[in-house]
Amino acid sequence: MKRRFWGWGVEGAGPTREQQAKLGRTIASRFGAGELTAVEPPTMPELDLRAPRVEPPATLASICTADPEERAGHTYGKSFRDVWRALHRDFSNPPDLVALPHNEHDVTALLDWCTDARIAAIPYGGGSSVVGGVECDVGDAYRGTVSIDMRHLDRVLEIDRQSRAARIQAGVYGPALEDQLRPHDLTLRHFPQSFEFSTLGGWLATRSGGHYATLHTHIDDFVESITAVTPTGTWESRRLPGSGAGPSPDRMLLGSEGTLGVITEAWMRLQDRPRFRASASARFTSFEQGADAARALAQSGLHPTNCRLLDPTEAMITGTDDRGDSILLIAFESADHPLDAWISRAVECARDHNGSIRDDAIHTSEAREGAREGAAGNWRNAFVRAPYTRDAIVGLGVISETFETACTWDRFPDLHRSATEAVLDAAKRVGAEPAVVTCRFTHVYPDGPAPYFTVLALGTDGRQLEQWAAIKSAAGDALIHNGGTITHHHAVGRDHRPWYDQQRPELFARALRAAKTTLDPAGVLNPGVLLDPRPSP
Amino acid sequence: MKRRFWGWGVEGAGPTREQQAKLGRTIASRFGAGELTAVEPPTMPELDLRAPRVEPPATLASICTADPEERAGHTYGKSFRDVWRALHRDFSNPPDLVALPHNEHDVTALLDWCTDARIAAIPYGGGSSVVGGVECDVGDAYRGTVSIDMRHLDRVLEIDRQSRAARIQAGVYGPALEDQLRPHDLTLRHFPQSFEFSTLGGWLATRSGGHYATLHTHIDDFVESITAVTPTGTWESRRLPGSGAGPSPDRMLLGSEGTLGVITEAWMRLQDRPRFRASASARFTSFEQGADAARALAQSGLHPTNCRLLDPTEAMITGTDDRGDSILLIAFESADHPLDAWISRAVECARDHNGSIRDDAIHTSEAREGAREGAAGNWRNAFVRAPYTRDAIVGLGVISETFETACTWDRFPDLHRSATEAVLDAAKRVGAEPAVVTCRFTHVYPDGPAPYFTVLALGTDGRQLEQWAAIKSAAGDALIHNGGTITHHHAVGRDHRPWYDQQRPELFARALRAAKTTLDPAGVLNPGVLLDPRPSP
Repeated sequence: MKRRFWGWGVEGAGPTREQQAKLGRTIASRFGAGELTAVEPPTMPELDLRAPRVEPPATLASICTADPEERAGHTYGKSFRDVWRALHRDFSNPPDLVALPHNEHDVTALLDWCTDARIAAIPYGGGSSVVGGVECDVGDAYRGTVSIDMRHLDRVLEIDRQSRAARIQAGVYGPALEDQLRPHDLTLRHFPQSFEFSTLGGWLATRSGGHYATLHTHIDDFVESITAVTPTGTWESRRLPGSGAGPSPDRMLLGSEGTLGVITEAWMRLQDRPRFRASASARFTSFEQGADAARALAQSGLHPTNCRLLDPTEAMITGTDDRGDSILLIAFESADHPLDAWISRAVECARDHNGSIRDDAIHTSEAREGAREGAAGNWRNAFVRAPYTRDAIVGLGVISETFETACTWDRFPDLHRSATEAVLDAAKRVGAEPAVVTCRFTHVYPDGPAPYFTVLALGTDGRQLEQWAAIKSAAGDALIHNGGTITHHHAVGRDHRPWYDQQRPELFARALRAAKTTLDPAGVLNPGVLLDPRPSP
Repeated sequence: MKRRFWGWGVEGAGPTREQQAKLGRTIASRFGAGELTAVEPPTMPELDLRAPRVEPPATLASICTADPEERAGHTYGKSFRDVWRALHRDFSNPPDLVALPHNEHDVTALLDWCTDARIAAIPYGGGSSVVGGVECDVGDAYRGTVSIDMRHLDRVLEIDRQSRAARIQAGVYGPALEDQLRPHDLTLRHFPQSFEFSTLGGWLATRSGGHYATLHTHIDDFVESITAVTPTGTWESRRLPGSGAGPSPDRMLLGSEGTLGVITEAWMRLQDRPRFRASASARFTSFEQGADAARALAQSGLHPTNCRLLDPTEAMITGTDDRGDSILLIAFESADHPLDAWISRAVECARDHNGSIRDDAIHTSEAREGAREGAAGNWRNAFVRAPYTRDAIVGLGVISETFETACTWDRFPDLHRSATEAVLDAAKRVGAEPAVVTCRFTHVYPDGPAPYFTVLALGTDGRQLEQWAAIKSAAGDALIHNGGTITHHHAVGRDHRPWYDQQRPELFARALRAAKTTLDPAGVLNPGVLLDPRPSP
C-alpha cells in the first residue's frame, strides 16, 4: 500500500469520487448551499518541486533520497491548511532530502552533518501532525532541510513479560506495533485517531492522547525510559517504574516535539489484553447536565476507560444519536475482573445527574479466548478512518478544523460558550457561512474536561486559507483567554506558537531554550517548533 | 510547641529517657550486646556557633534572624548523620542567618540580595530531608548561607470546590493544611512519614511519596500549577487538569530540590474525604511469593490504596505479625462507592498467588458522617511518630539507616538479594555488627515495586559516622548496579549525588545545568544539590 503524498493514509482508501460527491450533496443540502465541486487531487507530474539545495555526503547517500514523491509526501503534516495547500499544488517548501535511517548510528551521522552544514533536521514519524510540526518552511537561515523519517526503526526489540514492558523502536506505526505485541498477549492500548499513520516516537514527542478517557490519558504515563539522539550525543534514561531522583529526564523529552533530539526507542509499559467489558450510554437534555455527570464520574475513582460526552450535533454527525440530546458514552474494560460493580455505580452516578439510561443500553461481556474486540473494535476502526472523510470534505472546499483544550471545571461553561461564539463570529466576519461548531469531551479529569471542538464552515472559493486562519485565531484566543491550554493532545508545532507563548511561563521558555542550546548548539533540530529558530551563525 | 533544634519534631514528644533506656535494653538483648548508653541531647548553651559571616541589609533585617537556636535548628536535615552530628554537638556549618519571608515579595528580595552578595540561599520547608537537602555546608566560594524558612506562608488561599482543587502556600505543614481543608470536606491525602514536620513546598521540590501505594504514588500527580520565585523572576504555570503543550513546566520544578527556584504556592488537586473502606491482610511463607501477589495486584487495575508487603522482620518490628511470615496489607478507600467487589477480587488474587487470608481478616466499613478515620488513622499516627523512635535509637549509638528505590519486576529478586548482602557485608567489614536489614514495599507499580530497606547495626563508639558511610555507600552501589533508582521518594540532596550522577543521562545533567544557569545565573540556590556548586566569580 502506497502512502498518499498529498493527504491522509494510503492510495485507494477513503471515500471514492462518487462517495465524495454524495458527501458534497449532503453538506450542501444541510448548509443550504449550491453544488460543491471537488478539486481533483494532484498527481506527481503536475508538481514542479524546487531542486534540492543540498546534497548528502557520500557516507549518507545510501540513506538519503531526493525522490520527488518522497519529498512531496514529507512537505506537510495533515492539518486543514496542509491538505488544502497540497490539494492546490502548493509544494513551495519541500524538504531538500528525505533521510531514512536504519539505526541510531545513522541518526547520529545525519545530525552531525546537519550541524556541520547548517541544515534544518525535521524529525518525521507518521507525518500526522495537525500543527505544522513537520513542516519544512524554516526560513533562509538554513542552507536546506532534511526530513528524517524513522519508518525503518520499526521493531519491538525486547519484551519483559513479568514487568509487562517492551523496548520498542520509535519509528513503528500503531498497527505494526500491536501486531508485534499480540503474540505475547500484550497491548500498548494507545489509539489516537492517527493510530494507523503515526508512530511511537511521534506519540512521545507530542504527548499524544490515547485510548483511555480517564487516568492515563496521555502516552506520558506509559513511559519507562526513552533513548534519543541529539546533536551532542545520545540520551538514554534508566528503565524505572517510578523515581524521585531529581526532575524527570523523560518528562523533558515528552512534548519536546523534535527540538531537543530524535527519539529512537523507548521502554513502554504495556497492558494485558482486555477480557471483560461493560458499557452504557446516557442521554441528557442539556450539554451542561452531561458535563456534570462526566465530572461526577471523573471524580468517582471508578476510572472508566471511556467517558466521552457528545453534544447533540456531534451525536448526530457520528451517527450515535439523532434525537437532539447530549450523549455520554461510558465504558470499562479489564483483563482481570468482571465489571458489574463498576458499571452499576457509573450508571447510578449518571442517573443521579439527570442522565437517562435505558436498562437495555447497559452491556457487560466477557470475550472468549481469541475473540476480536467486537463493537469497541468497530468503533475504533470507524474513528481512525475519519481523517479520510475529512480530506474529502476539504477537497469540496469546506473549511474543516478541530481545536482542543483542557480547562478546570469552573472555567468550562465560559470557555465552551466563548469558544463557540468566537468561532462563529469569526466565520461570519470573514464570510465563511454557514458554519457549525460541535463539542465533545475526549478525556476527563477530576479537575476538568478536555473539550474537543469541530468546525465546519462553507468557504468562499479562493479565500479558504485566509478564512481558516481567522477561525483558527479566534479559537486560540478564546481558549487562552478562558483558562484553557492551546492543546491537550495535538501538540504545539509551528501553528500553535502564538498561544503557546502566552500560556507557558516565560522563565520556563528561557530554561527550555537554554536546554536546547546545550543539546543542539547549532539550532538545527526542528527550528520554529516550541521556540523561535536560532541557527548558529 | 517548640521545635527540637537537634532532631525530629517538638520538645517533649517522643520516647522519654526511661522509654529510651528500655528500648536500649531490648536492642541490646536482640543484638546480644552489652548496655547501650544514651547520649544526652545537646542544649543551646553548650553550642558555640560560628558568628554570622554576613549581615542582612536594613530592608531585610525584619525578616532575618541570627538567633542561635534558629540557626542551630536549620543546620541539618534529619538523616542519621544529621541527628548524629547534632547529638554530638557538631554544628560547625550553621546558616549565617535564617530568613522568614511572609510573601513572594520577601522571597524575591532575599534572592536578589543573595545574588548580589554571593550568599548561598537554602530553601527550607520542614527540614525533614534525609539526604542533606537543606544542609548549609556549601564551601568557601560563598560569602555565607541563608536558610530561607517558608513557615509563614502557611495558608490555603482559595478553594475551587467544583474542580476539587485549592491554591495553597508552600510553607504549610501537613496537619495545618489538612485542618484548613477539613471544613470543606476535602483532603490532599498526602501522608509521607514526615507529614507532621514537612511542607507542601518541600513535598513538591522533592517529589515526595505519599499515601497511595498504587497509581498516584508521588505528589507530582496532584499538581495543577506551581508558582516559584527564582533569582531572575517569578515562574507561574497555568492551572490545567491536563495539557500536551510542550514539555511540562511543572515537571521541571518537581524534583528540582530548591536549585531552580523557591516554590511559593501551588494549585493542588484534592480528594473528597473517604467514606467507604475495605482491607485484608495476606500471609506468605516467602517474600518472593508475597512479591508475586503484589505484582498481580499492581497489574490488576484494581488500584488499591494500600498494597504494602512486609518481610518477616518488618512485620515483627512494626508489631504487625510475629510468626515469621511475610505480610501483604491490602486496602481500598473511596468517597463514592462500597468496595466489596474490589476487596473480593483482591483477596482472590492474593489467594491465587499463595497468600493465606483468613475470612475474618477481611473488613469493609462505611464511616458515619463526621467519623474519624479509625484504624487507618491510628496506623498513620504511629507511622508518622516513628522518627522520634529513630532519634532515640541514634542516641543509643545504634546505626539506623533507610534506603529506598524502585526497579522493574525482572530486576527485583537480584536487587533485593544484592542490596541486603552488600549492606551486611559492609557492616561486617567495618565492624558494625550485628546488623539487620529488612525490606518492605512502600509503593507498587504495574512494572515494578518500590522496595524500602531499613538497616539497624550496632555501631562502634566513635566510629559510627564512618561505619554509616560504608553502609550507605554499599547500599547505593547495589541499587545502581541492579537497575534501581538511588531514590524513589527521599530525593537526591547532597548525600545521593554520587549515585544520582551515575543514574541520570549525562545530557540531561547538562540540560538541567543550562536551565539552572539561566534561572540562577549567580548559582546561589541550594549549591551542591543535584548539581555541583558553581557560584558566579
